Amino acid sequence: MTDYTAPLRDMRFVLHELLEAPALWARLPALAETVDPDTADAILEEAAKVCGQLIAPLNRSGDEEGAQWRDGQVSTPGGFREAYATYIEGGWVGLGGNPAWGGMGMPKSLAVQVEEMLYGANSSFALYSTLTSGACLAIDAHASEALKARYLPPLYEGRWAGSMCLTEAHAGSDLGLIRTRAEPQADGSYAVSGSKIFITGGEQDLTENIIHLVLARLPDAPAGPKGISLFLVPKVLVNDDGSLGARNPVHCGSIEHKMGIKASATCVMNFDGATGWLVGEPHKGLAAMFTMMNYERLSIGIQGIGCAEASYQNAARYALERLQGRDAAQASGAVADPIIVHPDVRRMLLSMKAMTEGGRAFAGHVGEQLDLSKFSDDAEERARAAAQVALLTPVAKAFFTDSGLDSCVHGQQVFGGHGYIREWGQEQLVRDVRIAQIYEGTNGIQALDLLGRKVVADGGAALRQFTAQIRAFAEQPGAPYAAELRDAVQRLEAVSDWLLAQAGQDPHAVGAAAVEYLHLLGYTAYAWLWARMAQLAAERRASDEAFYSGKLATAAFFFRHLLPRTLGLEASIRAGSAALFGEGFATKG
Amino acid sequence: MTDYTAPLRDMRFVLHELLEAPALWARLPALAETVDPDTADAILEEAAKVCGQLIAPLNRSGDEEGAQWRDGQVSTPGGFREAYATYIEGGWVGLGGNPAWGGMGMPKSLAVQVEEMLYGANSSFALYSTLTSGACLAIDAHASEALKARYLPPLYEGRWAGSMCLTEAHAGSDLGLIRTRAEPQADGSYAVSGSKIFITGGEQDLTENIIHLVLARLPDAPAGPKGISLFLVPKVLVNDDGSLGARNPVHCGSIEHKMGIKASATCVMNFDGATGWLVGEPHKGLAAMFTMMNYERLSIGIQGIGCAEASYQNAARYALERLQGRDAAQASGAVADPIIVHPDVRRMLLSMKAMTEGGRAFAGHVGEQLDLSKFSDDAEERARAAAQVALLTPVAKAFFTDSGLDSCVHGQQVFGGHGYIREWGQEQLVRDVRIAQIYEGTNGIQALDLLGRKVVADGGAALRQFTAQIRAFAEQPGAPYAAELRDAVQRLEAVSDWLLAQAGQDPHAVGAAAVEYLHLLGYTAYAWLWARMAQLAAERRASDEAFYSGKLATAAFFFRHLLPRTLGLEASIRAGSAALFGEGFATKG
Repeated sequence: MTDYTAPLRDMRFVLHELLEAPALWARLPALAETVDPDTADAILEEAAKVCGQLIAPLNRSGDEEGAQWRDGQVSTPGGFREAYATYIEGGWVGLGGNPAWGGMGMPKSLAVQVEEMLYGANSSFALYSTLTSGACLAIDAHASEALKARYLPPLYEGRWAGSMCLTEAHAGSDLGLIRTRAEPQADGSYAVSGSKIFITGGEQDLTENIIHLVLARLPDAPAGPKGISLFLVPKVLVNDDGSLGARNPVHCGSIEHKMGIKASATCVMNFDGATGWLVGEPHKGLAAMFTMMNYERLSIGIQGIGCAEASYQNAARYALERLQGRDAAQASGAVADPIIVHPDVRRMLLSMKAMTEGGRAFAGHVGEQLDLSKFSDDAEERARAAAQVALLTPVAKAFFTDSGLDSCVHGQQVFGGHGYIREWGQEQLVRDVRIAQIYEGTNGIQALDLLGRKVVADGGAALRQFTAQIRAFAEQPGAPYAAELRDAVQRLEAVSDWLLAQAGQDPHAVGAAAVEYLHLLGYTAYAWLWARMAQLAAERRASDEAFYSGKLATAAFFFRHLLPRTLGLEASIRAGSAALFGEGFATKG
Repeated sequence: MTDYTAPLRDMRFVLHELLEAPALWARLPALAETVDPDTADAILEEAAKVCGQLIAPLNRSGDEEGAQWRDGQVSTPGGFREAYATYIEGGWVGLGGNPAWGGMGMPKSLAVQVEEMLYGANSSFALYSTLTSGACLAIDAHASEALKARYLPPLYEGRWAGSMCLTEAHAGSDLGLIRTRAEPQADGSYAVSGSKIFITGGEQDLTENIIHLVLARLPDAPAGPKGISLFLVPKVLVNDDGSLGARNPVHCGSIEHKMGIKASATCVMNFDGATGWLVGEPHKGLAAMFTMMNYERLSIGIQGIGCAEASYQNAARYALERLQGRDAAQASGAVADPIIVHPDVRRMLLSMKAMTEGGRAFAGHVGEQLDLSKFSDDAEERARAAAQVALLTPVAKAFFTDSGLDSCVHGQQVFGGHGYIREWGQEQLVRDVRIAQIYEGTNGIQALDLLGRKVVADGGAALRQFTAQIRAFAEQPGAPYAAELRDAVQRLEAVSDWLLAQAGQDPHAVGAAAVEYLHLLGYTAYAWLWARMAQLAAERRASDEAFYSGKLATAAFFFRHLLPRTLGLEASIRAGSAALFGEGFATKG
């Protein structure tokens, strides 16, 4: 019953109008030759077709059928193999990849929009592709030239896929505890042994090879996170000519039965002396893996936006069609009006729209900063952008997905009882988006990363760089919502200063405040983006009344109804950690 | 993997200490002969055994197997038939029923605790019983003596079950649109024809008969909600001697495939000239059905508490066992500490505990007011209590279930990746509790009922009666959290006054504010109950240190970390309806 249409008009608005990405691309040498506005639009339109017509139609059936495991083999649901073959023919896996190894070299500010479409169309399908992109990034950044030459081209082509093998049964958030071991072999390779769990796409029937990036310990490794190295372990060994050789002893022991993303195989992977190669330096595997993890964190954040957009589209359509109750303000003469006349239905839809479009703009901003950090020829600009990316990546991952769940729950609620029935698709989006708050580092871990590593550790420097942009916007003459923005930034900065002081005295200060602080920063960032969007919409309204007046209405809703949540967040943060450690709680009363 | 243990200590605390229910029972003639503290405790303990040992073990398997439909017959999952037979032997269906017809006549303040156990153990199983209790209430209040005599005894015994047939495909929240028709027959019965959807337990294999309470229109009925009558339609006709006769033409056309409560059959019911009897007066069926609906609304609210309690128990147990990361404050010497040392894990657990125990106290309070409204010999006291019940029932339904979802999501999050895996049970609780925000009147409908009918329509009289109790508590010398309580009540009253004024000018004022107003009232009510609980806990701490210090810690957490959410709620409510009706929103931009 669901029907996903990529929000192309809004994506173009973010890319061309809000970010003015084409001007940026033109001044960055590596991008100037690769992409221009027409190319970008053509890519978005083609992606919209592939996602809407090829991939979205497999979303409901994929959920019902699920991935299946038998004797170590995984079958994806009906239609996935054919769709994946068509998908890789389009070169989509290598969209943002390094052209030196066959990637298309497209900017991240564009690629994030394509990723959103993928997740909105079919989150399970999307994962088979986005993990490959992340693995390529880590290989490109840290592996030897020989490994790059052998593995990157078929990965970018999508003929082979990537996986990310971190978690073990006793080591999830705490990777320092992992036990998988890598023994050096005479030929310079390593024999990798151990068992990994929760490996997305660890086994499947879509590609002829799967390249596992595996965290393991060398024999001489120090204990804890500083003794972890990164290894590339192919499912099938690769001959010198690039052809496939013997099967490597790495096998899928079972797949999980999950709440959602059922068409994505979540595998137990057993490495029994499998041959692998070191990526990067010994004992520095966690840092190398973070190249992939940071990519996936933004990507999984975008899953939150994609699912929320899909839920919004269904809910808005239903609200315009479903007749129930009468408008309290005016008699239409009908026995019942479409439920979109009811204020509470509009509240739910506008909440979804405000958070989803705010998130899309935020993802675009992070994409832009990633492009700057990679392609700028000004070292200081690169460093500034990298600091923004580091600050904002955990916010993107956690805030997009927390509000993604809220939005999918709202979108289900708009459907009333039908929202709870599988065939309508809204409940699947709730189940599918829920994982995004958990995997790729739980949102609690993201919040610790933000407040502990990205704010407190540098004394708030990156944060002030971020808030300075917001202050600069609010100080422009005639800037919309300037007073609200100044209040919001003032609140964020004051809370941050207070937390910097607390962190010096109370070892639990960061942990106690982290999640609410991340939300406070998220709402403040969205306020900045919504004010910028409102400014553009007011200027351009006459040129596209329906689109820009919708933007203005949504901005007003965000400032009046959602931003005030920061009041409660501030108060709760300032309560500190004391009430979390009251006596008598740890023993269940 | 899950294991439900009824929270008996806390239930006794609510019943005996907070509500001092035994003293109330002793002064109400109808209850004085029926129940005393020992009887109440014996019932709670026996219910805990039945729920923990008989019903909870069927929760996971029931979810996996689901209810099955074939050729009009419904099979409940394995074990349900045997468990149900044992359950009804204990007389549990008639626990709160009228003794004149075989009920046990137990007070509602006690019955709500038993209901919580049922939902906590197995929400799907619970529904087969709680709908019967509600149907009995409506029959007892509105049906003829002959119908009562024929139907109530086997219903209270649990040999027969009840169902509630309201919704039609085009008529959910808007019951005025229903089309099912009832034609008078020569013998005084009616021939009922039409199709109902979303009928919980409309068909099953647990009982030998099912008594449907059906909303339908008489031939001369006026259009809309004032033309609806209530009919009793048995699945199997009943002979004069009470034995079962011919099959009535009412059949289950299919069952829904749902997100959760999969062991509960949600039926399409087709009435093809089925024989039924009028309950209450013609065209006043909606009012009569509300006797059942109000019962079920409180009951479904309690589903939110039961699921949240189950999720909390699992999460607290897991957090004490799962080793991951180290305490930031002190080195235990271990490689990893139990995750309960981490502030954010404690924040999630305390949020669950504060909302669940707050809800349990609130449910007890509503139960007490129901007992007063039914059994007091003082007419004014009955009226006051009835007004409180009317005010607080929508709050119980919606606030318990909204926070029930939040709690179950937290409880899943504490488990990290394992929370997403079916075998651990935490994701089932999220799926099972989600329906409680939807059925029995969506939470948006509850909020409209609260603000429109229960607050604005009486000029805020019932609300002021409620807040007067809170003010009286806060004004006691030495009352804990008195300043916070006064602030909270002041906020609620000021917002209510503002809304009363707005409602006179803006037809959308009630709809725009309703959901957030319900939450504002909910947090304020919980603040009152938490302050009362903290007062008792401080006085009695020495007698049971573990229990009462846990209460005090949870109260502190509630006031410091959760109550501040009212700041954002107030600001959003005061934004009014304007931003919900900005131009350009209804057409998708």
